[in-house]
Amino acid sequence: MINLGLNKSVLPGWKNKNTLNDKTLKNIYGNQATRYVDKNILNCFVFSDSKSFDLIELEQLLQAVGWGRRPLRRVKRALDNSLIKVGLWQHDPKFPRLIGFARCTGDGVIDATIWDVAINPVYQGSGLGKQLMSYLMMSLKKVGIKRVTLFADSDVINFYKRQGWILEPNGNRCAFLYSN
Amino acid sequence: MINLGLNKSVLPGWKNKNTLNDKTLKNIYGNQATRYVDKNILNCFVFSDSKSFDLIELEQLLQAVGWGRRPLRRVKRALDNSLIKVGLWQHDPKFPRLIGFARCTGDGVIDATIWDVAINPVYQGSGLGKQLMSYLMMSLKKVGIKRVTLFADSDVINFYKRQGWILEPNGNRCAFLYSN
Repeated sequence: MINLGLNKSVLPGWKNKNTLNDKTLKNIYGNQATRYVDKNILNCFVFSDSKSFDLIELEQLLQAVGWGRRPLRRVKRALDNSLIKVGLWQHDPKFPRLIGFARCTGDGVIDATIWDVAINPVYQGSGLGKQLMSYLMMSLKKVGIKRVTLFADSDVINFYKRQGWILEPNGNRCAFLYSN
Repeated sequence: MINLGLNKSVLPGWKNKNTLNDKTLKNIYGNQATRYVDKNILNCFVFSDSKSFDLIELEQLLQAVGWGRRPLRRVKRALDNSLIKVGLWQHDPKFPRLIGFARCTGDGVIDATIWDVAINPVYQGSGLGKQLMSYLMMSLKKVGIKRVTLFADSDVINFYKRQGWILEPNGNRCAFLYSN
């Protein structure tokens, strides 16, 4: 059974609350949005690369996964300059809740690099991360990108391996340079 | 002695040909151009992140270092969408020759990734690659980028090590995914 760390009993009225038809989906989340209904807990999740983000909500998500705080002004500019930003929302007609995120930078043609893949810890282990990556890769494929790269923390190496990523070193290596 | 694989005797009249004052430097190569005179062979080289590229000349350079051919239309789009493009020219008042190149993609704020670092094989081993990287890092610093990454082929690992790059794996790894 998939455990999302959620309990149906804490979601009174979920049945009506989470009904989401095509028109509402596009209205709230944009034209490229995709819904994903978890059969076990009957929650409706939505992936979208066209819905805009509440920066404070995004920062809260990124901090929930343990990342350092960054000035919102800089985060906004980084998002503006990113090639694709994907959000994962737990659907609610009035207050969709951002529970996942990923973005990538790149030249829009040859290379793309994925950054900031995050799923709220409460929702981890449920397959949503895999779905998020799959949605992002689909978005990249539409653009026609030939090579996608990412830097993975050691504790999520297997997560990417299972999705077919080829891990380096394997003729190539990656390198980091941190400015002071 | 630095060997650039060139011979003074094949450069008749180089002394006048390679004289380059500040005004001419900016006119030909742009405001941010930097000149580098190799004392041993008295050649003048110029780094610039603002001079535009002849796409065919750029492709010839990239093929000279052994990279696959790419459609020029796609290369043009990739360059347009790159954050910074740096060229290295052997100065000539009429026909500057492109002998080095590097570019990076990124969000312009937090992350940047360097791609396509190339020095024409004839000019390799002379320190120009190090100068090229140094010029590119300076351009990135001006933008205020906090983290710079790259993927290095195994035969140039030491080149980056000598410049202070921290090689992974070291808590992080890089991964590649090639689309079909």
